[in-house]
Amino acid sequence: MQPTLNQKFKINYQYPVVFSRYIFELPNQILKNTLMQLAPSAAKVLVFLDHNVDRAHPHLRNKMQAYFEIHCPHIQLITQTITGGEPIKNERKHLFHLLSKIDQQHLDRHSLIFAIGGGAVLDAVGFAAAIAHRGIPIVRFPTTVLSQNDSGVGVKNSFNDFGKKNFLGTFAPPLAVINDSTFLETLDERDWRSGISEAVKVALIKDAAFYEALVHNAEAINNRNLDAMEEIIHRCADLHVAHIGLGGDPFEKGSSRPLDFGHWAAHKIEHLSNYQIRHGEAVATGIAIDCIYAHKIGKLSGEFLQAVLNLLKNYGFQLFHPELLPHKEEWKLWEGLEEFREHLGGELTILLIKGPGKPEEVHDIQKEVLLAAIKYLQAWEGEKPETKMLINNHAS
Amino acid sequence: MQPTLNQKFKINYQYPVVFSRYIFELPNQILKNTLMQLAPSAAKVLVFLDHNVDRAHPHLRNKMQAYFEIHCPHIQLITQTITGGEPIKNERKHLFHLLSKIDQQHLDRHSLIFAIGGGAVLDAVGFAAAIAHRGIPIVRFPTTVLSQNDSGVGVKNSFNDFGKKNFLGTFAPPLAVINDSTFLETLDERDWRSGISEAVKVALIKDAAFYEALVHNAEAINNRNLDAMEEIIHRCADLHVAHIGLGGDPFEKGSSRPLDFGHWAAHKIEHLSNYQIRHGEAVATGIAIDCIYAHKIGKLSGEFLQAVLNLLKNYGFQLFHPELLPHKEEWKLWEGLEEFREHLGGELTILLIKGPGKPEEVHDIQKEVLLAAIKYLQAWEGEKPETKMLINNHAS
Repeated sequence: MQPTLNQKFKINYQYPVVFSRYIFELPNQILKNTLMQLAPSAAKVLVFLDHNVDRAHPHLRNKMQAYFEIHCPHIQLITQTITGGEPIKNERKHLFHLLSKIDQQHLDRHSLIFAIGGGAVLDAVGFAAAIAHRGIPIVRFPTTVLSQNDSGVGVKNSFNDFGKKNFLGTFAPPLAVINDSTFLETLDERDWRSGISEAVKVALIKDAAFYEALVHNAEAINNRNLDAMEEIIHRCADLHVAHIGLGGDPFEKGSSRPLDFGHWAAHKIEHLSNYQIRHGEAVATGIAIDCIYAHKIGKLSGEFLQAVLNLLKNYGFQLFHPELLPHKEEWKLWEGLEEFREHLGGELTILLIKGPGKPEEVHDIQKEVLLAAIKYLQAWEGEKPETKMLINNHAS
Repeated sequence: MQPTLNQKFKINYQYPVVFSRYIFELPNQILKNTLMQLAPSAAKVLVFLDHNVDRAHPHLRNKMQAYFEIHCPHIQLITQTITGGEPIKNERKHLFHLLSKIDQQHLDRHSLIFAIGGGAVLDAVGFAAAIAHRGIPIVRFPTTVLSQNDSGVGVKNSFNDFGKKNFLGTFAPPLAVINDSTFLETLDERDWRSGISEAVKVALIKDAAFYEALVHNAEAINNRNLDAMEEIIHRCADLHVAHIGLGGDPFEKGSSRPLDFGHWAAHKIEHLSNYQIRHGEAVATGIAIDCIYAHKIGKLSGEFLQAVLNLLKNYGFQLFHPELLPHKEEWKLWEGLEEFREHLGGELTILLIKGPGKPEEVHDIQKEVLLAAIKYLQAWEGEKPETKMLINNHAS
């Protein structure tokens, strides 16, 4: 019999996450320099532009065109506006629309794709880019707080199918990520606020000092102070990038997913609300549920639980939703636990916290305790007016 | 402004290519040991079985079931027969059928997928496995000469879309490859023969000694000697695996694709024949065209060109097809050159040879010379009877 052949090789992945303002203004040469360094032979860029961003920044397309004419005259720039928000991830026709544009424009592996939009746009465009010609390099321009501090700086893309969030996707590090904070100025209140929950999440599991900073910055953020927001985004993105690069499992072969704290419930809530509740908002609820649960099983102090709930409330999140409760014989949220396990694979692994920066994994969630936690959240938020005062005292 | 974050990490890839016979017979413990080592916690295996293989091996399903009951009782085995051959790669409904089975069986990232079939089945199932839950581990069981010595041992998967072969796909190394040569015994003449062209290809570009072995083994192969075939497959797979692992560009970031010798024309011929001409057969024609072209521009001796054409002929390949010629104003084959460049990306890079094991890249193909090469092939094959005698002398 012929002997076994053993294939073995390694791939090095590397990309910068750049922070800037007014990235397409002519005096700003960051993008030009990034492309010169990372894709010197690129001859074509296909920009997929979230139509909400296009509407909020009506001069953006002209500015991009002018920028490339002056700084990168060797590159042909093609811009295509696309559906924004979660809908783009929900229907196959959107995926094949993206792929058809890649086909029609004759992109090849030495072309570039730019994705300009929120997390859902980055996910869907990233997935299309990853599977066309086995991977066309992509530069991500996240335009929301959530995507600038979390998903947009990571290594994943995704698409919803078979009624399951992120059922499809690949691990595909981008060529570069450009975080331009001027995109944040035009966000509505909900999008400005909602990305903060990922910062609260990563602070709670990794960094007590960052948690304190979030407590003290609440007022500045609520007043839409861009400097304060940039600092929070940078610290959050830094923790996220470090976790992927140094955590030992960038492509998530194991069952443990520390960055998914608060996410098992969040995924289900988004789906149950038909994506009317945004990801960041759902994560805030997910964090609240998991903290109450941790308290109820004796891992988290009552005092710290109140502090976390108040912090989330103070950032403006509505935490309880009626969909969280069982309805007749059916408890959808509970089903979400098994779906989460299935998506991760292997043993159920849920991260809880014992305090800020003190994570602990559990492999079992008790149904009765979870139900009690949901009812606790409902009651707690029912007393909102007093709570709100409490928070203001706390945050000042 | 916040400082740039630099993400950097590496991923180690590793997989065995195992050679055996009667892999699902109880005394053969290779598969059991491979799974114990590489996927000790797997609880579920979804087998996608090429229906042609199912028909040719009517006891296979029962044998698999018995094998798992005895050797891997902790694993649930589910078998699903699927369309075989290129059609499975051609229609989206087939892709979503595979994905729906993965969904219905609640596979997760710690489950396994087995793909049992020829190259097209491995490509399509591999693509579905790579994008479901961002990658479910796959064990490939190639059942044709072509897939055992070439595509099945590599790192790619693919799917045809927008009228272009392999427009979709990813780089996704398998968990393991199991080359069971007993599958080859039931192949029809065309499939037995057609994979040899990839061996001729890799020998011509990398290994003069292997080329000589192919000349001397032609008779044994034509007599369906399984030992001789196993040896050829092993040498070919070894060269293929080594090229990917040691060539410095396993995920093909560059424009150079040495293993695609003879393939630019092959891809187009397959498509023009509506996949009636099989990949291996098309590669034989592609090798012939590129060798004639290399001879016409003075790179390859007339003597060696005759030897290569005779070798391919002696393995039973029909080399000329009328679709290769221009038709009225249109020359489809010529268009295939640009499509090939686009799929690879960057500059057109075609590998030619100056002799066995002596490759040379060119970046330009002359239209008139190419046309003359096609006409040469037509004339050469028109004189088949005498040629055939020539070969027999040469091969003996």
